[in-house]
Amino acid sequence: MRIGIDAMGGDNAPCEEVRGALAARQFLDRGDKIVLIGRQDAIRQHLAEDPHWPEFIEIHHAEQVIGMDEAPVEALRSKPDSSLAVMTQMHANGQTDACVSAGNTGACVAAAQMRLRRLRGVHRPGIAIVTPTHYGPVGICDVGANVNCRPQHLYQYGIMASVYLQCICGVRNPRVGLLSIGQEDAKGNELVKQTRSLLKSDANLRFVGNVEGRDIFRGVCDVVVCDGFVGNVVLKLMEGMAEGVIRTLLDELKAMLPGKENTIREAAGSIIAKYDYNEYGGAPLLGVGGICIICHGASSDRGIMNAVRATMDFSKRRVNEQIMELLSTGQRVADV
Amino acid sequence: MRIGIDAMGGDNAPCEEVRGALAARQFLDRGDKIVLIGRQDAIRQHLAEDPHWPEFIEIHHAEQVIGMDEAPVEALRSKPDSSLAVMTQMHANGQTDACVSAGNTGACVAAAQMRLRRLRGVHRPGIAIVTPTHYGPVGICDVGANVNCRPQHLYQYGIMASVYLQCICGVRNPRVGLLSIGQEDAKGNELVKQTRSLLKSDANLRFVGNVEGRDIFRGVCDVVVCDGFVGNVVLKLMEGMAEGVIRTLLDELKAMLPGKENTIREAAGSIIAKYDYNEYGGAPLLGVGGICIICHGASSDRGIMNAVRATMDFSKRRVNEQIMELLSTGQRVADV
Repeated sequence: MRIGIDAMGGDNAPCEEVRGALAARQFLDRGDKIVLIGRQDAIRQHLAEDPHWPEFIEIHHAEQVIGMDEAPVEALRSKPDSSLAVMTQMHANGQTDACVSAGNTGACVAAAQMRLRRLRGVHRPGIAIVTPTHYGPVGICDVGANVNCRPQHLYQYGIMASVYLQCICGVRNPRVGLLSIGQEDAKGNELVKQTRSLLKSDANLRFVGNVEGRDIFRGVCDVVVCDGFVGNVVLKLMEGMAEGVIRTLLDELKAMLPGKENTIREAAGSIIAKYDYNEYGGAPLLGVGGICIICHGASSDRGIMNAVRATMDFSKRRVNEQIMELLSTGQRVADV
Repeated sequence: MRIGIDAMGGDNAPCEEVRGALAARQFLDRGDKIVLIGRQDAIRQHLAEDPHWPEFIEIHHAEQVIGMDEAPVEALRSKPDSSLAVMTQMHANGQTDACVSAGNTGACVAAAQMRLRRLRGVHRPGIAIVTPTHYGPVGICDVGANVNCRPQHLYQYGIMASVYLQCICGVRNPRVGLLSIGQEDAKGNELVKQTRSLLKSDANLRFVGNVEGRDIFRGVCDVVVCDGFVGNVVLKLMEGMAEGVIRTLLDELKAMLPGKENTIREAAGSIIAKYDYNEYGGAPLLGVGGICIICHGASSDRGIMNAVRATMDFSKRRVNEQIMELLSTGQRVADV
């Protein structure tokens, strides 16, 4: 297996990307290679930390870099030699088997869609994240690839994310909920109402009906389906809120338990780690004809390392093959 | 001032409603009255707890009750003598000056829109909540009145919620953010992009641009504008997440600090109280031609009591008058 990494994408590129690649060696099998794509000199400088790098790392030079705030399609057009564009092109050419980026998410989604195309039967790719809860992992799809969703897109997110949770998190026959603003059929916007009937009519899916924001943390479903605008708001809200609530609780506790500051800080650290995107190893763009793992822009070396592990798992557990299979049977039902 | 309360609406009606009304006496001025609307016998039974009730409470009998899960418009049509319908009708007739309900939110919004009409210049009413954060209160509007928003609606939510934060929370010249999925102009769905230019063009508003979910807790704005679908998802997510994060942190801490269970539980209780909807005193339906305060269905007597206080504040600080004033000047700018 050959995994391409956009070495120039993240907020702290290429330092964290290179260090993450070095640390990921533990997850590679014999013969596997990581291809770091980006400015050769900068990459080499950080590789120097580990003299064994040539055993499992290759460098592929790309001169240009797409910034975090650039408009995706325009940036890809004007920077054909950017690390991100080259990374997806190499995957499309068969020079790599997967790609990983902590760069501009919109540009990564656009490049993957253009170069890797879609899996057979998929209408729109969607990004799936897995969030830890008191009751176990919950997958949310889409969290930002597609802000103009149609019911068919959401329905397929239910199928793809189910496969992902089953393959990667070991959740058997995942319960799928549709994010809305009330459990009753009549609640929600037009998109939700139409999606609901598609999800209901597919006997291959374990659809549990509408779920509300609070249900994500109450163990009522394993997969939450939503459009990319709502999903992205939810994703970032969770990030900000975990931080905010914990900070407030710490302030209270410090005042109440003087002398226990360190223990309290340690406990908080362990919770924050549970909500830390660096632990998940990135989010797959489900539905593209390849493997594309998107990392948080602020990913540390640990985040990149875990993304390599996620990439290996994605490939070994044949997520794409299973999506195509479930999609072909599921759609017959939904089309009736 | 006469405040009508739907005594039959909440999950624990009429017990909590009646007790809340009794406890609210402390906020009333001389001559103010609370009118409890609903089944006379049930209301009287709980009023018996306080022999002084006739000094500040009246009962107005209404035979029917609208359930939490009933379809709003149909329920209002088929139950003209429901406590909710009677409550709004009494306000419209001038028999009361405000109304408070912990009942079916959709039915309450529909009844208020039909009976109280809209304030001059308002396109669509929206529900505003105030959430506590580490950096101070943040208002979010709309959280569920309007799931099919147009840019003009969102723009007016910015104006109305600004007035509300200024009048009720004492935030001077509130910073208004538009909830989106990235700070750049190009990010977001069509609704957000169009709303952005309306907000930008109004010199009376302190618009700080797009904000993301995490920014709600980072002190970057005082008012968050969003459509009612997204806002309701956010509201319920916050509710579920505060609970979930705190529970996880408590489990960690209990294991690390044996013997300190009570202190830890106490600290958690004080945080949960900060996020407790019962402390806010309900959310106003901004933009209707009257005062309509909507409470969480699970409101306790404390929640109802605080809603009465919120109602008094809303009236004394002349929120509606100020909305109309800002709306009439603001719109001239936006129409250019």
